[in-house]
Amino acid sequence: MSSADKLKQQAAIKAANMVKSGDLVGIGTGSTVNFFIEHLAHRIKTEGMHITGVSTSWSSTLICQKHNILLQDLGQTSFLDIAVDGADEIDPQLNLIKGRGAAHLMEKIVATLAQKFVIIADESKLVPQLGQNFAVPLELLPCALGLVESRIQKLGGDFTVRQGLRKDGPVISDSGNLIADAKFPNIENPATLSDKLQNIPGLLEHGMFIGLAHKAIVAKKDSIVEL
Amino acid sequence: MSSADKLKQQAAIKAANMVKSGDLVGIGTGSTVNFFIEHLAHRIKTEGMHITGVSTSWSSTLICQKHNILLQDLGQTSFLDIAVDGADEIDPQLNLIKGRGAAHLMEKIVATLAQKFVIIADESKLVPQLGQNFAVPLELLPCALGLVESRIQKLGGDFTVRQGLRKDGPVISDSGNLIADAKFPNIENPATLSDKLQNIPGLLEHGMFIGLAHKAIVAKKDSIVEL
Repeated sequence: MSSADKLKQQAAIKAANMVKSGDLVGIGTGSTVNFFIEHLAHRIKTEGMHITGVSTSWSSTLICQKHNILLQDLGQTSFLDIAVDGADEIDPQLNLIKGRGAAHLMEKIVATLAQKFVIIADESKLVPQLGQNFAVPLELLPCALGLVESRIQKLGGDFTVRQGLRKDGPVISDSGNLIADAKFPNIENPATLSDKLQNIPGLLEHGMFIGLAHKAIVAKKDSIVEL
Repeated sequence: MSSADKLKQQAAIKAANMVKSGDLVGIGTGSTVNFFIEHLAHRIKTEGMHITGVSTSWSSTLICQKHNILLQDLGQTSFLDIAVDGADEIDPQLNLIKGRGAAHLMEKIVATLAQKFVIIADESKLVPQLGQNFAVPLELLPCALGLVESRIQKLGGDFTVRQGLRKDGPVISDSGNLIADAKFPNIENPATLSDKLQNIPGLLEHGMFIGLAHKAIVAKKDSIVEL
């Protein structure tokens, strides 16, 4: 296991240990979350815990099925005790950029449903300001492509439809929509940018998570810190 | 033809006469718009006008095809000279409720793209305050049902998934999502309610059109007024 993976695993184990028997647990998507699912399955097996999960993607659904973690339909869910997810960037106010895995629409639904939304990451994800390393992922209707592209450009962003691998043409999300990335040179106020993006019809969701995270468990080389 | 249909047709003809040869024209959805398409087709045939349309629904696409009106793909479109659409309610500030035909998501994309967005209606659509007669139509991902329903209730609304006719179960939109209706007892500030609805992830679009309409052509029994 790489040293980055070891750090991710440490944060994931700490989050899995926060889950209590009986909890309804939102399960994010990505390599760090996969360690979380593994340790949750381990606790269910060894401690006899009763956990019901709610998944944010086909990726996590398939891994939960492999580990025999019972899943509840997201559409039926109006409350979660806790949700755990990774992030691509975390700023000092715990605002996030998510969506490298193209699951940010369902991830945001789950984050919004959760009483506690906990981020797990290695320290490479900490940034002083959102947008420093990553573009803002977007999910959009194909029929809104012209509108969204022109609006992102008006907002000063560089717009790219995300191209798939192992398929021709663009990435298609688990909900059947296009994924694009909007790189902004400088996101001074993430909440203001978020409001402007929300107002573009056909832009179904963007990857900035503003004021949603309650806690971040960040594994550093020599310690695990909670923010 | 019913007297209401005659009024709709008068407003529609007036709007169709605003279109100029060479225009790229957004074409809304609904019974009033169908009169607009008919008169546009009549002008193309009799005046030799060159018009390209951009459709907001399968409903209008099929009617345009019948009338040989050339359509451009909405996803390629980043500008429209004019768009013409109906409305379910029109308030004195030209804010609208739309979506009885379940086409409000694509209608809002088209309205946003248009340099001039013109509403055509008979006088029964004029209300002093939005929400007086109609619920606010919603389009949502099936997996967001639990979240959207609970948030609408928190906002004081009565939430109903729209049931289909000539199919079992709920209405499915042209984009493959669920349609629901949120009836609010009193919409004092449509812009504030709109912002709150935009912030619910998985709620893809709502039927309030705030500040989008430039003009309303309203047919009354004895005159046509422009607002």
